[in-house]
Order: sequence, then structure tokens, then C-alpha cells
Amino acid sequence: MLILSTIKPKEELINKMNTLFPKDEFHYYRNMEEAQHELKNADILITYGEDLTPELVSIASKLKWIMVMSAGLDQMPFDAIQEKGILVTNARGIHKIPMAEYTISMMLQVIKQNKRFIEQQNQHLWKRTGFQTGELFGKTIGILGVGAIGGEIARLAKAFNMKVLGVNRSGKLHEFTDQMYQVSEIEEFLPKPDFIVSVLPSTDETKYLLSEKHFNLMKSDAIFINIGRGDLVKDEVLIEALKSKKISHAILDVFEQEPLPSDHPFWDIEQVTVTPHFSSKTDMYLPRSFDIFEKNFQIFKQGSNEYINKIDLERGY
Amino acid sequence: MLILSTIKPKEELINKMNTLFPKDEFHYYRNMEEAQHELKNADILITYGEDLTPELVSIASKLKWIMVMSAGLDQMPFDAIQEKGILVTNARGIHKIPMAEYTISMMLQVIKQNKRFIEQQNQHLWKRTGFQTGELFGKTIGILGVGAIGGEIARLAKAFNMKVLGVNRSGKLHEFTDQMYQVSEIEEFLPKPDFIVSVLPSTDETKYLLSEKHFNLMKSDAIFINIGRGDLVKDEVLIEALKSKKISHAILDVFEQEPLPSDHPFWDIEQVTVTPHFSSKTDMYLPRSFDIFEKNFQIFKQGSNEYINKIDLERGY
Repeated sequence: MLILSTIKPKEELINKMNTLFPKDEFHYYRNMEEAQHELKNADILITYGEDLTPELVSIASKLKWIMVMSAGLDQMPFDAIQEKGILVTNARGIHKIPMAEYTISMMLQVIKQNKRFIEQQNQHLWKRTGFQTGELFGKTIGILGVGAIGGEIARLAKAFNMKVLGVNRSGKLHEFTDQMYQVSEIEEFLPKPDFIVSVLPSTDETKYLLSEKHFNLMKSDAIFINIGRGDLVKDEVLIEALKSKKISHAILDVFEQEPLPSDHPFWDIEQVTVTPHFSSKTDMYLPRSFDIFEKNFQIFKQGSNEYINKIDLERGY
Repeated sequence: MLILSTIKPKEELINKMNTLFPKDEFHYYRNMEEAQHELKNADILITYGEDLTPELVSIASKLKWIMVMSAGLDQMPFDAIQEKGILVTNARGIHKIPMAEYTISMMLQVIKQNKRFIEQQNQHLWKRTGFQTGELFGKTIGILGVGAIGGEIARLAKAFNMKVLGVNRSGKLHEFTDQMYQVSEIEEFLPKPDFIVSVLPSTDETKYLLSEKHFNLMKSDAIFINIGRGDLVKDEVLIEALKSKKISHAILDVFEQEPLPSDHPFWDIEQVTVTPHFSSKTDMYLPRSFDIFEKNFQIFKQGSNEYINKIDLERGY
């Protein structure tokens, strides 16, 4: 079988696949442009899910399965795929560990003033007074969206002896939360947390969910963290909340416009920490994605239908 | 009773003490120089333990109890104190939470390349390729000195799904370690961890415990963290280990000479992170110390002898 990949992983993973599936041919390219000439012969396609068009799907006449090495599927030409009855699976579930570690890392960076110490080191400065650092212990974290990722953040926050509040659709208590709120109760929730972290996806419900009145309700020393989607709050609302000190800091990994334009005010605001949509990206990303591929490929060969993360093409997730 | 303090805490704590002990007088000063004129009338002294001399002890003729708001007692004039039968207690136990959070924070800072992202933000640079970040998940941490502090580090490391190895005198298994080694087995231990953190105090046994041969045994991508005492390893040994890439990074909060001299090479080595002996210092330091004082003061008033952290003046700890 020919497995065409528009992702080129490290040698180690390439060797692993060859050892596991010696009778199959894996052809790896760095992008679709390079891979395109083999598309007509490919039985299986491995992709990040952003490089397919209806035209490319029609070229891929032998294609039976698309493994998307990502959780986002919004750029997939589902109609064309569905018409040809192609199986789609994705890498849902691999994000929770890196994103939870990112969240803890960034909360600690801000309250422990790690940037100050980096600056002091640059200046060869041994300074221990005139400032204080904080702790996670005993603080309250509020998580917008307690699913797989939010649940993992909750679990780690509990280990740090934080109080954990959460918001999701049902408001049902989660194993690692002390209290849950429904989205309709968000105004009751917002005044409580020292850290508010959003892992919400972009949907009609969540788009611009947070407005000025919501930031007015937060603690003035609250730290806001967005690792979900950038359209949870309008840039100008967040900038105004920071400038008028309604909250003390924002840690932003996602933005309304990505890449964040180089002249965007976020870069220069002292109380903003910018990272380039990287919270889920570690050296474990592809190994974990290929683990899912490997298990699904065994299932594919057996002719079973019990795939991990099989996408319902009707619903789109 | 007159409680003389050479530590001036925040208003909040001063008010708390006045509320709890309305019949007693608390006089707070910023240091011994300012406080000294009241020493002869003081029943109780609150101090960091670095500002006493035999002469001062002899002036303090009414002194019955010294509460040291620190764990280190090496600068206390024990002979003079013992001669006058003065009770000494300290703040042992308040360090484990901030020091464990510091350790997790710094491990994450290095493997998640937070300094790179701070630099990219300074440059308004959205860059997601050409580098990779890591995770704590699945990595191995080795802890030199698994007591109260090391045990708390082990507990948090376990929450991150790390493998936890430890070294202490007995080699006895700890609740949150997967494997323990005795000090005599250190050469078997050193090749295993991705992170090696020392919380060892300075004793005859631990002074210069780590030499060149020990760094030769560590993984070449190991990250070494010292939050114990600076004389665990000679500066030149550590610098050589870093320059010859025997290890990949050192996170140092303690030094042979403190303050670290401004011309010391550590400041400028790319693979060294310097903090100014700050791992235990957070805004919870004095509240937790005064919690111990408060409990001991109740015991003192009741005339009981069941003090928290009573120091055996013979042994000095």
C-alpha cells in the first residue's frame, strides 16, 4: 500500500513505521506541493489537514483514508471527501499534555516573575528586595471549557493545591474541579479566579463570548490565559481591560489574526505574554500522532471499523 | 508581654497578631540596629536568625524565646543562648511549597524554551519552526536529598507523570519516588535522570560531593538544578561540565559565594540560569512563618512544652 505523507517526521519515526509495516510504502514530503504528483496512487494520506482542496481529492482516485495529524478540521473539503466515501480520522487527544504543561509553565512564569530574573541575570544583578513573587498554592484557577484539555489542566492545578472552578455546557462536576458553572452562570464565575484560562474552540456560542462587562467582573489581579481560539474576545476589549488595569496580565497563545501582525499592540504591552500558537507543539506531537496512525492502520488492515477518532463527515467532528 | 521583632511584616500580618493577642505588645523594626534599644525589655524575639551576637544575648536579660523565621541556624550564638536557657524555635517546613514550585517552574522554563519566546516577543517575531520544545511528561527526575522539600518536588513531578529517582542517606523508598539510591550508589544513579535537582544542605558529607567524574556520568542533555547549597560542586567543575557539553543546562539558585560577584562567569553562560537564592522566597514566606509563631505562642502561654520546631541547642537543629 502507498501511504503518502505531506508531513516529514524525524528519521526515528520513519524507521519505526518501516519496522512496523515492512510491506507498505511510506513516501514523506514536506508539503502538498512536493507530494502532489503521487496523490493519484496514494491509498492513504497523512496531512495536517490544511492542504486539501476538492480538486486534489478528485485526483486522489485510490484514496481510502485521510489521517489528519491535528484536531482542527475546519479547512477540510468535507463534501468532496464524503462523496468519495473516504475515511477520515484525526489526532484528537494528543493536545492535552503539552497544553496543560504550557498553562502551568506560563502561570508560574508570571507569578514567579521569571522575566525579572532573566533581566537581572542579563544585568549581572543580584537583587532580592523591592519585589515579591507568588505561588500557585492556594490560588483559584477558573477553566473555560472543561473537556479533555481543560480536565488535564484541572488535574495538574489540583496537584499544586489550587482551587479549581470550571465552566462548560452542562455545568456537571468534573473529577478534578471543585465547582462547575454553566455558560449561563459565567457572571457568577468570573469574580472568583486568580487565573482564568480558556481552552474554548471557536463556535457560534464562543465567538466574542467575553466582552467588556466580563472583564469588569474579574479580579483586578487576575491573570487571563487564552490557549483556545483568538476570537473569544476582541483585541480592543482585551487591550482596554489591560490598560485600565481591570486584570493584571494576559498570556496569549491564540489571536484573532494569526500570525499576529508585527505592528500589533500586543507585542509591546508589558502585561501581555505572546507565544506563537505553540501551546500544543512539543517534540512529542508527531510521535503521539503517529501512535494513533499506527493503531488505526492495524485496524484498517484488519478491515475492522473500530477506529480511534473516526470523524463523522455529516457533523464534521 | 513584649514581642520584639527585627522583621517588619505587612500591615495585614501586624493586624492579625494584634487581633489574636490583644494583651501583648508587638514592636516591629526593620533590623536589629533599630530594635536594639528595646532588647533589654523583650520577652520574645522574632528574627531571621542572622542578627544576634553573644553580646546582644547578654543584653536581653528578660528574653525567654527566640523565634527564628528561617530554617538556617548557622549564624546563631548557641553557647550564649543555651547558657541563659532561652527557647529557640525555627520556621522549618515552610520552604517545601515555594521550592518545589520553583523547581517545576524552572524545569518548564528551560524545556519549553520560554526565554526564546520572550526574545521573540521583544522582536515582534512570530516564529514556529527551526526549534522544538519538550515536555516534563515521561521524563526522569533525580532528586539529591529526598526530605521534606525533595519529597514535595517528587510529589509534583509524579503529577506530571515523570519517573522519580531519589538519593538520600538511607536509600529507603519514599511515597512519591519510583526508585531510591544511597549516597554510596550515586554513580549508578547519575546516568539516569533528564533533570538532576539538589536540595542538599551544606555538611561535611555534601561539600563538593559532585566532581568532574560525576558530571561525566550524567546524560549529555541533562539539566542540573541546585537549590540546596552552593558548595555542592566547585564553580570551575560546573563551568567545565557546561562548556564541554557534559550536561546541557544548569539552573542555579545557590552559589559558593553569595551574592554572586558581578564579574562571575555564571551570569553570561548561555546554558546557565541564575536566580538570587530566591527559590523559597514568596509572598507566603512571612504568613507561614507567623503561623508557626502564632501556634507556638499559644503553647508558650499555656506553659506547655510541645513546641513546633523546637531546636535542640546541643545538636544545633
